[in-house]
Amino acid sequence: MPRSVAYHRAAVVELLTARLVGRTQPSDSAAVQNQGSDHVPLLEALGRALAVDLHAPRSLPPFDNSQMDGFAVRTSDLADGGAVLKVAAPIPAGAAPEALRPGFAVPIMTGAMIPEGADAVVPIEKAVPDTFPAPGADAEVRLPATAPGTFVRNVGSDIAEGQLALAAGTQLGPAQLGLLAAFGLTTVEVRRPVRVLLVTTGDEVVEPGQSLTAGKIFDSNGTLLEASMRQAGLEVVRTGISDDHPESLLAVLRGHAAQVDLMVTTGGVSKGAYEVVRQALAAEDVDFVPVAMQPGGPQGIGRFQGVPFLGFPGNPVSCLVSFEMFLRPALSQVLGTPAPRPVQQARLAAGLTSPDGKHQVRRGRLSNGVFRMEGGAGSHLVHALARSNALVQIPANVTELPEGAEVEVWVL
Amino acid sequence: MPRSVAYHRAAVVELLTARLVGRTQPSDSAAVQNQGSDHVPLLEALGRALAVDLHAPRSLPPFDNSQMDGFAVRTSDLADGGAVLKVAAPIPAGAAPEALRPGFAVPIMTGAMIPEGADAVVPIEKAVPDTFPAPGADAEVRLPATAPGTFVRNVGSDIAEGQLALAAGTQLGPAQLGLLAAFGLTTVEVRRPVRVLLVTTGDEVVEPGQSLTAGKIFDSNGTLLEASMRQAGLEVVRTGISDDHPESLLAVLRGHAAQVDLMVTTGGVSKGAYEVVRQALAAEDVDFVPVAMQPGGPQGIGRFQGVPFLGFPGNPVSCLVSFEMFLRPALSQVLGTPAPRPVQQARLAAGLTSPDGKHQVRRGRLSNGVFRMEGGAGSHLVHALARSNALVQIPANVTELPEGAEVEVWVL
Repeated sequence: MPRSVAYHRAAVVELLTARLVGRTQPSDSAAVQNQGSDHVPLLEALGRALAVDLHAPRSLPPFDNSQMDGFAVRTSDLADGGAVLKVAAPIPAGAAPEALRPGFAVPIMTGAMIPEGADAVVPIEKAVPDTFPAPGADAEVRLPATAPGTFVRNVGSDIAEGQLALAAGTQLGPAQLGLLAAFGLTTVEVRRPVRVLLVTTGDEVVEPGQSLTAGKIFDSNGTLLEASMRQAGLEVVRTGISDDHPESLLAVLRGHAAQVDLMVTTGGVSKGAYEVVRQALAAEDVDFVPVAMQPGGPQGIGRFQGVPFLGFPGNPVSCLVSFEMFLRPALSQVLGTPAPRPVQQARLAAGLTSPDGKHQVRRGRLSNGVFRMEGGAGSHLVHALARSNALVQIPANVTELPEGAEVEVWVL
Repeated sequence: MPRSVAYHRAAVVELLTARLVGRTQPSDSAAVQNQGSDHVPLLEALGRALAVDLHAPRSLPPFDNSQMDGFAVRTSDLADGGAVLKVAAPIPAGAAPEALRPGFAVPIMTGAMIPEGADAVVPIEKAVPDTFPAPGADAEVRLPATAPGTFVRNVGSDIAEGQLALAAGTQLGPAQLGLLAAFGLTTVEVRRPVRVLLVTTGDEVVEPGQSLTAGKIFDSNGTLLEASMRQAGLEVVRTGISDDHPESLLAVLRGHAAQVDLMVTTGGVSKGAYEVVRQALAAEDVDFVPVAMQPGGPQGIGRFQGVPFLGFPGNPVSCLVSFEMFLRPALSQVLGTPAPRPVQQARLAAGLTSPDGKHQVRRGRLSNGVFRMEGGAGSHLVHALARSNALVQIPANVTELPEGAEVEVWVL
């Protein structure tokens, strides 16, 4: 009996967890992963995962500063319903200001340091006159009564020195890298990427750029999966195409087992007469299982010389669906990166039928909440796939859906 | 009177269109952009935009092939309610098969070429016996009547040679690159990235890694925006921090005008007393305009020596919001890349208030359809921003929303 999509995904999660996450710690996977780390400049860390908890090396803001363009004041000077104050020399940006003398107001710009003695900022719009006097002039300004703390951004109000700023495993995007820069950091410790060996198999498969004889096709799986894996943050090791001799494939796997965290093959896992991956791994700790899914039903899963192994089917659409349904979500769950695909509810532009007992994944275009299928169910339709931007998920127990039915869509 | 978010975005679109899209063609912007192109290996094109319309250099599938493991047959042999046929030697994967003789059925695996004379495939499950005979044995098989074309994937049924495969401007992801590989291509012509000069300004701003004296802060805008721009496919030219002397900034802009497609500055655009960008560009074709948005209200827009110019405000949250609200969507609209941010409807975890007449963009975490704000409205809160994964859009005419209100969220 075929296993469910959820069951197989859980098996992939378990396989990766055992390899990538230390076993000596409790289940907080993000904190205990096992891959090692690299120190890299901030911008090289874009999209990668923080290796360790990062605590704020300084407070942000680093000092009390003004939220407005206006006058820094002692509010006690204005307690009696406001007052006319003498205007001190303005505070230059980026300088440590002099202490504010009683009876004075000092022009201050947004972000500038609040001087000692001042405890609030009155915005220029509330001053009379509501413009700054020319520098050097002997000016006065009328300001209203103001509560202490008004328009002051206090030191540490965003984050205080020593607090947890970003947890280990956080994916570093523009905002996270901006925070590290605000702390004054120039490098960051990120996890080493998971290294995957990717092998496409088949006597009928030819490298793009070579000549194509009758009966042969170009390898699209290798490019499609390497691109998917790179997008997901993996480091991909390619070996070219392995032919249909089990010994050829075994030699490739043996030659790389010590250097990779994961092995993925394409093709050779179904029930035909010439299934090279099944034959090569018959004596290994690898199961070949039917998953109740279309496309991508036949799957290999296990370990080769201790290294996690996944055998995807040989059609390009099956490869992409296998990656998106199993490997990518398992990486998200175990490592926190890549981010899961956005999931949306949408309406079908046209009705569909689906085989009973199989979770069907159709490809198509999501636009304005409507999902329009591209191409038929055939797993060889790589041009239809290339026109698609989303996958629709049809549960195993659904056999027919009308036009307009609400469906779950994963955005690629 | 402040301009609306939509008005300002349209102005940015117009500014970029004039630079990046040729004016001699009709409005199909994707087909006529103006940046030049590079030929790169397929995997280096990941995330980049196709420079030209790409027509299929060959048909896919490249030949009629089997959709199932089974027997290739002449359906006329089975017309009389099925028949017992002699089993021919199996078709090896990747080979040109011999023609099928009348009265014979030939074992064929999924993807293998249909032999001349055959016009359908009977799946192995429908054969009696339902297993393939050992090679070399003199075997027979009973097969049912079958309609012509059954389980045959016809040459060109995915795409025929010469048809438009991918339109100019298409963003190349795993599926699109997989299609190019299936065509046998090894390189692809992609648009040269848009080159942007990014200058952060301010006497108070110090490069990360240097020492910080009182009143100064580290530059986070540069890192935050460079990361955002790289993510969006731009090539970023950085020049370090420009101080508050207008001549310093002008020298930087003049020095790069001939090499870039766009200039972006941060800081110095509001109404304070020391606004270096405003002062430097007072005599140029640049407007400093209030946009009815919070944060990110003050914006500069125009041209410097003919090059499109955008002046973002100086706080990091304002920079990110300016990029996401104006520059990124304008690039998506004009060039087709990057893909627009996914938009979702969500419910507010807590009520909020918003200033009348200003479109407010708050930061927070979207999870399971619920949006929870991180930090207050202050545009200096870069740690709160780093905890966020989404922006909520509060229209200008909304002043208050209760807990549970439905809102539009952009997923970062």
